[in-house]
Amino acid sequence: MKILRRKTRQVHLGALPVGGGAPISVQSMCSTDTRNVRATVRQARRLRAAGCEVIRIAVPDDEAARALPRIRRALPGVPLVADIHFDHKLALAAVDAGFDGLRLNPGNIGGPARVREVVAAARERKVPIRVGVNAGSVEKDLAARHGGPTPRAMAQSALRHVRIIEDAGYREIKVSVKSFDVPSTIDAYSLLAAELDYPFHAGITEAGTAFSGGLRSGVGLGILLYLGLADTIRVSLTADPVMEVTAGFRILKAMGLRRRGADVVSCPTCGRCHGDVLGIASRIEKRLTGVTEDIRVAVMGCEVNGPGEAREADVGLAIGRSGGLLFREGKAARKVPESEMEPALVEEVRKVLSAKA
Amino acid sequence: MKILRRKTRQVHLGALPVGGGAPISVQSMCSTDTRNVRATVRQARRLRAAGCEVIRIAVPDDEAARALPRIRRALPGVPLVADIHFDHKLALAAVDAGFDGLRLNPGNIGGPARVREVVAAARERKVPIRVGVNAGSVEKDLAARHGGPTPRAMAQSALRHVRIIEDAGYREIKVSVKSFDVPSTIDAYSLLAAELDYPFHAGITEAGTAFSGGLRSGVGLGILLYLGLADTIRVSLTADPVMEVTAGFRILKAMGLRRRGADVVSCPTCGRCHGDVLGIASRIEKRLTGVTEDIRVAVMGCEVNGPGEAREADVGLAIGRSGGLLFREGKAARKVPESEMEPALVEEVRKVLSAKA
Repeated sequence: MKILRRKTRQVHLGALPVGGGAPISVQSMCSTDTRNVRATVRQARRLRAAGCEVIRIAVPDDEAARALPRIRRALPGVPLVADIHFDHKLALAAVDAGFDGLRLNPGNIGGPARVREVVAAARERKVPIRVGVNAGSVEKDLAARHGGPTPRAMAQSALRHVRIIEDAGYREIKVSVKSFDVPSTIDAYSLLAAELDYPFHAGITEAGTAFSGGLRSGVGLGILLYLGLADTIRVSLTADPVMEVTAGFRILKAMGLRRRGADVVSCPTCGRCHGDVLGIASRIEKRLTGVTEDIRVAVMGCEVNGPGEAREADVGLAIGRSGGLLFREGKAARKVPESEMEPALVEEVRKVLSAKA
Repeated sequence: MKILRRKTRQVHLGALPVGGGAPISVQSMCSTDTRNVRATVRQARRLRAAGCEVIRIAVPDDEAARALPRIRRALPGVPLVADIHFDHKLALAAVDAGFDGLRLNPGNIGGPARVREVVAAARERKVPIRVGVNAGSVEKDLAARHGGPTPRAMAQSALRHVRIIEDAGYREIKVSVKSFDVPSTIDAYSLLAAELDYPFHAGITEAGTAFSGGLRSGVGLGILLYLGLADTIRVSLTADPVMEVTAGFRILKAMGLRRRGADVVSCPTCGRCHGDVLGIASRIEKRLTGVTEDIRVAVMGCEVNGPGEAREADVGLAIGRSGGLLFREGKAARKVPESEMEPALVEEVRKVLSAKA
């Protein structure tokens, strides 16, 4: 499977490059009340620990803006993006506080003079501005002209905002055009790719709760990544944002685009299955949640695909009629009775991880 | 987004057409001990209630084979597939019991005479045979020649099994070439598409537990479907198989390929969020799990995308500073205080569903 990434300019969020061939980064957004600095910083640290490479924070009003300097100081070196709508002063405050990026649609901050003011501030610190169009907030005139928030309406909306920034003489831009609808999202990004060479922030918006939102994001981001249309991704889930980060890396890893984190191969179980595959797989996956090393663990319940899959993993357990067969780095290591399978698996995983560390 | 489905022959599992332009079907597999007829039938009925269109059952031994007639009788009209390895008598028993399909790799049932016997039985009832190659069970000679269970080794293995059936003069065939690895799976199906015109059963095998396996299956099946390489799908999850069915329909619906079931649009919540979006979205999603109607419900927590998304849904709730705004079929229906938001949403959904029914 060949992925030809679209050629783009490169922008930087702090030290993190986005686009221009940089690794596809994973981002998320704090779900806390921004005015609650303690809760926001605590959540941002949890996101960072999960590997989150860019953290976005909503700035709905002046009180939230006043919290930004303290949030910034508490998270040195972390690429932070301020999410702003309608009020250009909030953008100025975010740049002033040392935030590394803005998400802001310049068509809705009150006219060209204010846009120039924001761009001047952004330019001084080389802060990129993301134009972020969502199907739910496409301008009424465009929706009317195109018969709803269609891919063409979304792309036109994004182009309109982008042109405003370009007219102010600035080109440190990222763009997103997200919808809940997967085909619309693919089409909107494809349309924009023909017009712009700014990096794309990609995602499926308002995708839903963890399981269904994960499926939808897997489908949408899988195709966007396959088409080379993503430079940084956010998986939107109605869930703890840490799950967005886990999901983001899992998607990139499944595509062979990043190598971070553990994979647990486990069979769906069937009438041929021996042992508690679901329990063992779930527990080992949970145990490996924070791990950054590239490791593959297999938990398989039968003789048909079990030994084969276990052999392909760093550590594998193939459960048979009379206990488990433990594999390490492609070789059958030892037989273990059923009661000792799980601790033996955990022990082998620990050894492989410390060898990798 | 245009999906050009690969042109294939059509086979039938009972009354269900697969390939040749038929709707892409969703299947799953019982995780029960097949010898336990009561548990197997109970699970199959739950799968059926969730919309499962083909149910596969493992037949590991004679005792399991003896249970098949009772399972068959308890599930009239349901397309049933017997999953068989190594022992051709089990396949004969399954055909004899009235099963609608076989999953069986003829290279491993003990020679041409036995293959001819199985094919003769299958032909009599026009029972299709699925050649199902998994990375974990690629033949040793092919893995050795290709340096592991590579896409080429998987495709070669499938071709070898297919040729055995063709040599016995039979063409009611489906094929799958599944791996845990997404790029390998895509490549293996792509290689086979150039060689065969049999319908493809598609999936990512041993994908893992619900959340991570769902992400991986979303990515892999999303791309396979985008490339037109799937005629029937199974999402493999280490979880209750009913979740595989839900996931399958959600993936197809996200791609615009089927229209079954409810979608819940919900925002990821941020510093701008009002109300208990996670709780309300999760509960309404749960309530809508069994629903077969094509309905979209939005639960949104802010003024930025909220009203827009709520307007695009059949029923939408946009939560603001002072309670919720309820939308129905694109129009703002009424304002509701926070305490009445959820029951009002449920009530509107109920009305829309009974209008659709």
